[in-house]
Amino acid sequence: MSTTTTIEALAQTPRPRRVVVDAMGGDFAPLNEVQGAFRALEELGPEVEIILVGREADVRKHITATSSRVKILNATDVVGMGDEPSSIVKHRKDSSLYIGLDLVRNGHADAFVSSGNTGGVMATATMVLGRIPGVSRPTIGSFFPTTTGRPTLLVDVGANVDSKPRFLHDFAVMGSVYTELMQGIASPTVGLLNVGEEEGKGTEVVKETYALLKQSPVNFAGNVEGRDILKGTVDIVVCDGFEGNIVLKFAESILGFLKHRFVSYANKGLMQKLLIGAFKPVLKRVLSGMDYQEYGGVPLLGVNGVVIIGHGSGSPLAIKNMILKAEEMVRKDVNGAIQRKLAAPRETRDQQ
Amino acid sequence: MSTTTTIEALAQTPRPRRVVVDAMGGDFAPLNEVQGAFRALEELGPEVEIILVGREADVRKHITATSSRVKILNATDVVGMGDEPSSIVKHRKDSSLYIGLDLVRNGHADAFVSSGNTGGVMATATMVLGRIPGVSRPTIGSFFPTTTGRPTLLVDVGANVDSKPRFLHDFAVMGSVYTELMQGIASPTVGLLNVGEEEGKGTEVVKETYALLKQSPVNFAGNVEGRDILKGTVDIVVCDGFEGNIVLKFAESILGFLKHRFVSYANKGLMQKLLIGAFKPVLKRVLSGMDYQEYGGVPLLGVNGVVIIGHGSGSPLAIKNMILKAEEMVRKDVNGAIQRKLAAPRETRDQQ
Repeated sequence: MSTTTTIEALAQTPRPRRVVVDAMGGDFAPLNEVQGAFRALEELGPEVEIILVGREADVRKHITATSSRVKILNATDVVGMGDEPSSIVKHRKDSSLYIGLDLVRNGHADAFVSSGNTGGVMATATMVLGRIPGVSRPTIGSFFPTTTGRPTLLVDVGANVDSKPRFLHDFAVMGSVYTELMQGIASPTVGLLNVGEEEGKGTEVVKETYALLKQSPVNFAGNVEGRDILKGTVDIVVCDGFEGNIVLKFAESILGFLKHRFVSYANKGLMQKLLIGAFKPVLKRVLSGMDYQEYGGVPLLGVNGVVIIGHGSGSPLAIKNMILKAEEMVRKDVNGAIQRKLAAPRETRDQQ
Repeated sequence: MSTTTTIEALAQTPRPRRVVVDAMGGDFAPLNEVQGAFRALEELGPEVEIILVGREADVRKHITATSSRVKILNATDVVGMGDEPSSIVKHRKDSSLYIGLDLVRNGHADAFVSSGNTGGVMATATMVLGRIPGVSRPTIGSFFPTTTGRPTLLVDVGANVDSKPRFLHDFAVMGSVYTELMQGIASPTVGLLNVGEEEGKGTEVVKETYALLKQSPVNFAGNVEGRDILKGTVDIVVCDGFEGNIVLKFAESILGFLKHRFVSYANKGLMQKLLIGAFKPVLKRVLSGMDYQEYGGVPLLGVNGVVIIGHGSGSPLAIKNMILKAEEMVRKDVNGAIQRKLAAPRETRDQQ
């Protein structure tokens, strides 16, 4: 069996690299969380430990393997989908969400992953961990498939609405650092989401952001339009969370729309049904990558600690990928790179 | 041959119902415009005339049929895609765009259709015709296919950015009137595009708009999200032109993205090529309705005269449909209904 642990035990130094898993987070918690943790362990080096935080009895029920590198930390409370994000820090200090994030804040662990209430994780992480020095607002991005085969990161997709130009600037910097270190793309290109390509288009906020990005340390490629996301015109598309969230949810609905279309066609008659049946594997293959659930979790960039947030319905595979991604972000010091990039003196236009 | 006409001749009263076609508007002008006009004529009653405005010699080249109900009005200048929208009224008074719109302003015609430079048509129409009394800002919407089979009107899709709550309110009213009269949907439902369904979500502008819409004469169904557009949750989705344009262009890019996916699959080998080949007619059928070009033109709502704007690459069929739609809008007095609806005293919350 895995060891039960305590905060005191975790506080001892030196300590291994640690990823905390909110074992009560997702719709199938703690089953998927436990299975995902053990799968991740197989791919992680011996220097990494996983801490499952949650109701110990519930978590233990699903543990079938043994490893000293998976530890359980009891948390009696569970945050649900209906909980008000802003109240968790004050009133839910015994929750797996709060206790898990507090381990990162205390320096007892390096990263935190959760498939729980997205708004709740976001708000609690920001309040418990604070921001990386120099970051105006933490952000969440999402990857879109493209015709180039290289995904585009749309950032922000809902963490912030009514963003100021400075926030959008910081999303661009954080997205660039993440894409460079985690996707291995040198000097990734950044586009500003707009209604036209020409400078001077768009809202007042976007116009001011254009000027800021021209002087920023990112590889700014100018304005891009809605059609450029799936085309993969740039590596990172920057926008306010209002339109980012609308585009993301619109995109997530396409697969369902297409399925409905194919089913309607199949229901026209036997021939049609057979034809669609024969073609199903091809459709599955071609439309894969449009299922945004496959991407697993996305990082909450800008908080002072590594945090990955996943879909509530995340599979054990998704949880595993979130843990591996979190460990990689720690190893590659993504947050340190963000801090250095935002602290660097900005180039002036004259120098360009 | 069709008759050449003059502004003096058109000024005589009583006059027939008249639709003006910008014969020089589209990428295939004046060919498609001429063909579309004659096709429309076959479906219009004898009380309707069509005026083709453009370079007479160019227009005449494409005229093969004869009808006294299609007249040609010469215009020596042509507005191109590169022309600055705001300068047309001042400097291009001999263009088909300006002369055509001026016929409507003078009361010599009832409606104007063009497949030219969208920004140019929009700006010139607004300046030449002015607004319907009570309308804060004219708007352009676009229809999206849905799983219910009944299209959703997204409005605004780019005519306005940084819209004030009052503008969004007026888009909702105009969209409702249009949908009711032209689509035949009694009391169509209106949703406000947002990042969540709960009241109190979103930007400051959206929150204020929510309050306005609650007291408006439209059938307000509350907030909707990006995924609700293709689901057809409501008949009309109201948003600022910034996000509306981004969503429209994103949606327009889906078909190309899917085609690319299917072609990539077909290129994997002979079997794959045969399979995709066999399935092509089904795909065409299933994906139809996602081709936003098929919808032909969209009305510029809120200007004091009927104006329909089409895609530059519009086919003769698209032009025909634009003319028929324009004539129908005149016949059903959509603009009169908009004016009456915006003039009606608003219900207060207490009365609801």
